[in-house]
Amino acid sequence: MKNLKHSNAVRDGRKMEQQEFKSLLRQKTSEIDALIEQYLPEENGYQKTVLEAMNYSLLAGGKRLRPMLMHETFRMLGGSGRAIEPFMAAIEMIHTYSLVHDDLPAMDNDEYRRGRETTWKVYGDAMGILAGDGLLNYAFETALAAFDFAEETGTEEMKRIAGALKLLANKAGVYGMIGGQTADIEAEERRTPLSTKQLLFIHEHKTAALIQASMMVGAVLAGAGKDELAAIEKCAYNIGIAFQIQDDILDVTGDSAELGKQVGSDAQNNKQTYVTINGLEKSGADVERLSKEALRILADFEGEHDFLEELVINLIHRRR
Amino acid sequence: MKNLKHSNAVRDGRKMEQQEFKSLLRQKTSEIDALIEQYLPEENGYQKTVLEAMNYSLLAGGKRLRPMLMHETFRMLGGSGRAIEPFMAAIEMIHTYSLVHDDLPAMDNDEYRRGRETTWKVYGDAMGILAGDGLLNYAFETALAAFDFAEETGTEEMKRIAGALKLLANKAGVYGMIGGQTADIEAEERRTPLSTKQLLFIHEHKTAALIQASMMVGAVLAGAGKDELAAIEKCAYNIGIAFQIQDDILDVTGDSAELGKQVGSDAQNNKQTYVTINGLEKSGADVERLSKEALRILADFEGEHDFLEELVINLIHRRR
Repeated sequence: MKNLKHSNAVRDGRKMEQQEFKSLLRQKTSEIDALIEQYLPEENGYQKTVLEAMNYSLLAGGKRLRPMLMHETFRMLGGSGRAIEPFMAAIEMIHTYSLVHDDLPAMDNDEYRRGRETTWKVYGDAMGILAGDGLLNYAFETALAAFDFAEETGTEEMKRIAGALKLLANKAGVYGMIGGQTADIEAEERRTPLSTKQLLFIHEHKTAALIQASMMVGAVLAGAGKDELAAIEKCAYNIGIAFQIQDDILDVTGDSAELGKQVGSDAQNNKQTYVTINGLEKSGADVERLSKEALRILADFEGEHDFLEELVINLIHRRR
Repeated sequence: MKNLKHSNAVRDGRKMEQQEFKSLLRQKTSEIDALIEQYLPEENGYQKTVLEAMNYSLLAGGKRLRPMLMHETFRMLGGSGRAIEPFMAAIEMIHTYSLVHDDLPAMDNDEYRRGRETTWKVYGDAMGILAGDGLLNYAFETALAAFDFAEETGTEEMKRIAGALKLLANKAGVYGMIGGQTADIEAEERRTPLSTKQLLFIHEHKTAALIQASMMVGAVLAGAGKDELAAIEKCAYNIGIAFQIQDDILDVTGDSAELGKQVGSDAQNNKQTYVTINGLEKSGADVERLSKEALRILADFEGEHDFLEELVINLIHRRR
């Protein structure tokens, strides 16, 4: 790995052994898997096919990164209660719908994802559109169930849930993820040179916005104040952008077998990335700078966040 | 019109002159148009195209029936305050997104709607998908703004808004409109004979669910009790099904010039409709029965609803 030097710099002073981290990661991932399964729609009725297609997509073996970031932020800020649970399922549904629609023939036209056929490839084009719509709508239905947990706890908890819903909707929509997707599609269609500003807009909205939603929803539900929320937003921005730049780096330097996908596909598609615009060295240095800043922000929080810190380091400096 | 006899039966004892109704209808429609314009997203930023496509679809000259039913139900039940306003805009956004996605090449492949090119035809296939996603997501962003009006009014109003959001999401989703759309697409693809039960499932979910959402959200925000809400749900079901059967009748008996679209298109497409399954006479009688029952339910409400009653009659017995 070409940015190993940078990785090592960040790895100084870490509080958790890799083995302990890996074991916790497995445990937490399977807890989230079980949680999501509770919120899956049942597959029956005349609309059975769209429900099957939704569940097929949700169970495609994602890393559950967004619900995990949400829950860890909630924990760090001392959150308690179950209102977080439907939101954890909801953010994964929104992430999943975005992949289902991204893969459609009219969009990226991808037939495989994580080694399985994509949703439209299995269920057809029309059902791919409807499954995505169904997941987005069901994400809100699911998140709204958080109000059921607030019945006894009163107005303050209702206000937090309302705030979390607004954040989720905003970061997923045209001023968030859908906005980034639009700019990305247009950039590809136009094939004119992208400025760093445009590319950062795309990364900020297409990738970082949902990371922000995850961590900020966790924070709001834990009762974070305005300053804490702003710090979390900035931290999540850094994580999201660093994550995406690392993705671009791996497309050049990564190992196909380890990545589980072909490297060099960006170059092959003449896709402009952070690396093609800024070069490998600056890209690596930027990942380093962004992740250090994210970790510095986390360090200011008093609540326990050893796992969250390790998760961020692993995420940004991943090799696949 | 072949079902004129039935229409006249319903028209007995009406409280509002047609001229007064038409004038009120114009006034109320333009008030709703103005309201929706307030909630349109501004068209700027790197995601400008999707915002343009969303507004193009929202301003395609709809009848604004759903926000109107919502507001009239709210009025009938003595509702007050402004929390209803974002919901009125939101239901129109949901209705509009469903048309945008319905028209896509992978779905109905329609190039024209209400005499204008459809959204995908103007902005391309990918942007048609994103504009629909954007509208659905923005509907929830918009409806969530209702909480801003509840700040002073407290917990009771927040609970009503939470209830209205749940209803909206449920009736729009896989157990509502998207469910109906799924069953409809599959019925067309399979081309096996439909049972009346299947067809009613499609009409109930694809058409009636959003009428139910409209009237029930109005009722919940006005503080309707459980029994009142159940009555409104039944009333809206009847209106929705009668509306859809009338649509099928008009495809056989209507006047192309008046309808603004070709008649006989269902027969041409070998589409199974309520009329092809049950015949014209029974279909007309069912519209009559359903609309009488809807009006009987409305009559039990003490609040002023002369306009709402006339709206329902005009809607069900429309000739276009």
